[in-house]
Amino acid sequence: MEGSVILLDFWPSSYGMRVRIALAEKGITYESKEENLGEKSPLLLEMNPVHKMIPVLIHNGKPICESHNILQYIDEVWHDKSPLLPSDPYERSQARFWADYVENKIYKIGKRVWKVKGEEQEAMKNEFIECLKRLEEELGEKPYFGGETLGFVDVVLVPITSWFYTFETFGNFSIEAECPKLISWVKRCLEIESISKSLPDPLKIYGFAKQLLFGVE
Amino acid sequence: MEGSVILLDFWPSSYGMRVRIALAEKGITYESKEENLGEKSPLLLEMNPVHKMIPVLIHNGKPICESHNILQYIDEVWHDKSPLLPSDPYERSQARFWADYVENKIYKIGKRVWKVKGEEQEAMKNEFIECLKRLEEELGEKPYFGGETLGFVDVVLVPITSWFYTFETFGNFSIEAECPKLISWVKRCLEIESISKSLPDPLKIYGFAKQLLFGVE
Repeated sequence: MEGSVILLDFWPSSYGMRVRIALAEKGITYESKEENLGEKSPLLLEMNPVHKMIPVLIHNGKPICESHNILQYIDEVWHDKSPLLPSDPYERSQARFWADYVENKIYKIGKRVWKVKGEEQEAMKNEFIECLKRLEEELGEKPYFGGETLGFVDVVLVPITSWFYTFETFGNFSIEAECPKLISWVKRCLEIESISKSLPDPLKIYGFAKQLLFGVE
Repeated sequence: MEGSVILLDFWPSSYGMRVRIALAEKGITYESKEENLGEKSPLLLEMNPVHKMIPVLIHNGKPICESHNILQYIDEVWHDKSPLLPSDPYERSQARFWADYVENKIYKIGKRVWKVKGEEQEAMKNEFIECLKRLEEELGEKPYFGGETLGFVDVVLVPITSWFYTFETFGNFSIEAECPKLISWVKRCLEIESISKSLPDPLKIYGFAKQLLFGVE
């Protein structure tokens, strides 16, 4: 039923983590192939010739690219266990809306907030916090964005929280001080095995980020 | 069955056109409310408080925002007529992949290519054509991106072609000379009533663009 499932991945990638969580939630056995992004494998170039980026899920030899897309594919093919998107079309549309919000705000700012300096960084930190507060509001009193159980928005958002220590250290700010409810949600998520085993240690990410920025660890 | 369907729209918006086409393809009767983006209506601000952007589909009083999201919602709720996404999960993932490509390449460059100047414009024109050629390759010998019938990628891509005259005139280049197969596809699309009646006259768009750029028509 599962067939052959291969994931082209890179350990500090939040996009890769999303797929790891979804596969773990569905209980799918797969082979993970770690990519070296400085020297991409022929398999990656063959499977994602357009973007040449991880993650790529290869199911029975056929590639699926782009993390949101991969999550939806996984959810559609293995739909019996741990559904990520709700079955009601309106609720689905709302989950997709917030997943796009996470992508276009949180991930976009997150990519830059720890690398820039001075006024630009101040402005980005403020926008980042503002967007996280908007998500806190959306979460409300629910345990997860998906409601009583993990959903699409949770899986899309939680990986980047493994980068929060890096953002906070380089950016000299505290996300928990500003968004305590969101951090409670992170802690709740980390109690779930599919998540805790898919997210790297934030200190290891910080080491990777330092190396990326300064060439040393 | 349909219930109340309202579309908050703005005539030159390619994102709005996408929704118009989908609603027409499905044969859905709806009320269109034209927005004045200089002075957004209280209804728009209430229905899309996060982005405050059109298009918004209001179905039985509940808002759906973001054009890809609206198209998928329409396709899921009114699934019996003119399916936009294929039923097979792998084919769906491929349609979503190319729809994202259109969004992140064609629309992103299209927003800027006619406004910038000099070297920046040259670089953008080259990238724009390169991306369109990539789409031509994906289209291959099929009549539509959806195969024998109109699909998700067709509906996502075709609206921006009503801006091609504007891009070409401001950018001083010919898309048809570079991508004749894509332009044949545009002509094929314009023979379909749901599309021809949803896309404004390119000359009217050009007038709008001139006004936007120079404040005169």
